[in-house]
Amino acid sequence: MTPYHNQAGPLPASQQIEAAMLAHLDNLTKPRGSLGKLETYCIKMAKIQNRVPPYIGKKGIYVFAGDQGITEEGVSLYPSEVTYQMVLNMFSGGAGINALAGGTHWEVIAVDAGVGRDFPPDEDLPPQKACRFIRAKIQKGCRNFYKTQAMSAQDVVKTLEQGKRLADDAQAQGYDLVAIGDLGIGNTSTAAAMLIAAGFSPDEMVDRGTGIDQERLEHKKRIISEAVALRKPAQNGEAILEQVGSFDLGMMSGFILGLAGKGIACVLDGFPVSAAAYLAAMINPQVKDFLFAGHQSKVAGHRPVLDALGLSPVLSLDMHLGEGTGAVIGGYIIELAILTARTMASFSQAQVSGQDIVEEKY
Amino acid sequence: MTPYHNQAGPLPASQQIEAAMLAHLDNLTKPRGSLGKLETYCIKMAKIQNRVPPYIGKKGIYVFAGDQGITEEGVSLYPSEVTYQMVLNMFSGGAGINALAGGTHWEVIAVDAGVGRDFPPDEDLPPQKACRFIRAKIQKGCRNFYKTQAMSAQDVVKTLEQGKRLADDAQAQGYDLVAIGDLGIGNTSTAAAMLIAAGFSPDEMVDRGTGIDQERLEHKKRIISEAVALRKPAQNGEAILEQVGSFDLGMMSGFILGLAGKGIACVLDGFPVSAAAYLAAMINPQVKDFLFAGHQSKVAGHRPVLDALGLSPVLSLDMHLGEGTGAVIGGYIIELAILTARTMASFSQAQVSGQDIVEEKY
Repeated sequence: MTPYHNQAGPLPASQQIEAAMLAHLDNLTKPRGSLGKLETYCIKMAKIQNRVPPYIGKKGIYVFAGDQGITEEGVSLYPSEVTYQMVLNMFSGGAGINALAGGTHWEVIAVDAGVGRDFPPDEDLPPQKACRFIRAKIQKGCRNFYKTQAMSAQDVVKTLEQGKRLADDAQAQGYDLVAIGDLGIGNTSTAAAMLIAAGFSPDEMVDRGTGIDQERLEHKKRIISEAVALRKPAQNGEAILEQVGSFDLGMMSGFILGLAGKGIACVLDGFPVSAAAYLAAMINPQVKDFLFAGHQSKVAGHRPVLDALGLSPVLSLDMHLGEGTGAVIGGYIIELAILTARTMASFSQAQVSGQDIVEEKY
Repeated sequence: MTPYHNQAGPLPASQQIEAAMLAHLDNLTKPRGSLGKLETYCIKMAKIQNRVPPYIGKKGIYVFAGDQGITEEGVSLYPSEVTYQMVLNMFSGGAGINALAGGTHWEVIAVDAGVGRDFPPDEDLPPQKACRFIRAKIQKGCRNFYKTQAMSAQDVVKTLEQGKRLADDAQAQGYDLVAIGDLGIGNTSTAAAMLIAAGFSPDEMVDRGTGIDQERLEHKKRIISEAVALRKPAQNGEAILEQVGSFDLGMMSGFILGLAGKGIACVLDGFPVSAAAYLAAMINPQVKDFLFAGHQSKVAGHRPVLDALGLSPVLSLDMHLGEGTGAVIGGYIIELAILTARTMASFSQAQVSGQDIVEEKY
């Protein structure tokens, strides 16, 4: 706990908000601290929004779809065209994210952040019954970083800028909470390469993705390790994106960077999204202040990245589907926490005894 | 995994259901198994309902309120009248369970399962805006089991019967899923006594409840251990209820026993509810087949009881409020799992490649 009473002079604004939020929570008809992590979420959200209690009205889950050149090396079981097919599946509401976002009241936005195939012009697109569609493609998938750099330095700048424009979209839509999902065959390979380049251990970072066997896992480990050794990017976010990144993951980093200062909280999904968040935090460490980890996925490398970001996952349900499926559930629990803080009665309102009881913290 | 292919002759019904549910899940547009525990919940629910895919329409959370004679020994910080006051708080929608049940679409039922004060007659009751109220009181709180047995053998029978009538109510209401919450100052002491009497270790079972300090914790440990030693109930559910139980916890056990054979799944909340479930399982071990653990609370004794019941908690958010607050969130995630299984597109519906890909299980 911050030792408020030792402060000389007025508290900094974020500590004032924290103290006010805690006082609000302690005044509700429940033992102090008994909502556990739900109270932690309320406090973090109050600081992000600079408001006590915080409020969540509108929520948007942005699913960044893109193809990875590295799939040429046989690192995934699924063919690349599945990325394109799954975007169309999201249009009609058939993807996992449609079901889970529907049940947790999120608007879904499918972003073409570098899908390997061009979508038809608007007049020929299948109807988008279940999501909004944003065209943000820089190129049709990044290059195979086992053979050459993933993208040009110029495209890194364009990718981050495009991500920031999506953050402007989130603000224009009036979202209080956004979430990030990933959709891209092979993107756990890109995420692993980015994180290894950033200093994480290859053994921790390379995992089975959508479910490859031991032999293919060894192959994937070798390809990614060799690729990072060949590309040897400098230790900064932009260089890593250029050498071993991808358009979709880079655009997520840009999206997070663009959210800074907007008072919008952001929930991360699994391993690829968290890798993009890690790169964003390399560029601007303050983004960690408005990030939440929606869940811990089954992918082995996810937890070390969340730990490095200082984030504790809301859920841990062995999910590894992507698309933001873990983020929307975890994010809904954060919304429930805030709803609870806003609607519970105080001791005096409810004429319940015990407001003055201070429990031992444990 | 059950070795279906080794069966001579037709599969038992529950294995047929499991196989059919798994086939349904594997046909959806996602990597196999990628919804993690959400898929496990679907399979368990399919077996409970004997239906593929399962369905959850209406849900009810029963909050069993009752007072504990053991509070005379100073085991809790809060005065007993808080139990009564909090029931009225539930009427007007000011309790934590009202907020969380509202946000997760549960109907709330407050049950007078032995509150220490009589509620006024219906015409004088405050309006029940936010819940239904059921009068099921046997006595105004159980006796202080440090001094004498908690209730008579006759009252044990009445308590279990009353619980079974509440299970009939759940069926009559058409609930597909029910949850159990607890509301009773001192009920972690009763729960601990019941579980110690059932063979669990006192050191694991006695915890700080609503937040007592070290000195009061030592006192609570001593009182409960001595009480169990004095009462020394036989190793069966009924005897334990008679000697060191309470009306509210016993009625929960009866409720669970009454659900058997009705095809209704039941989500447990924290430590007191899980203790009641453990007693129900001592009486009829088959109840475990339709129970889910909504969450793991901060109370130290909770996990060992869930382990003994063979239940893995959906959430672990350090909550320790009771009232069913953890159960309704965990139960909603089970509902989301089933919604997802029901509404996702199949590979052929969505024209997505990869249906024939079988991932290595890991």
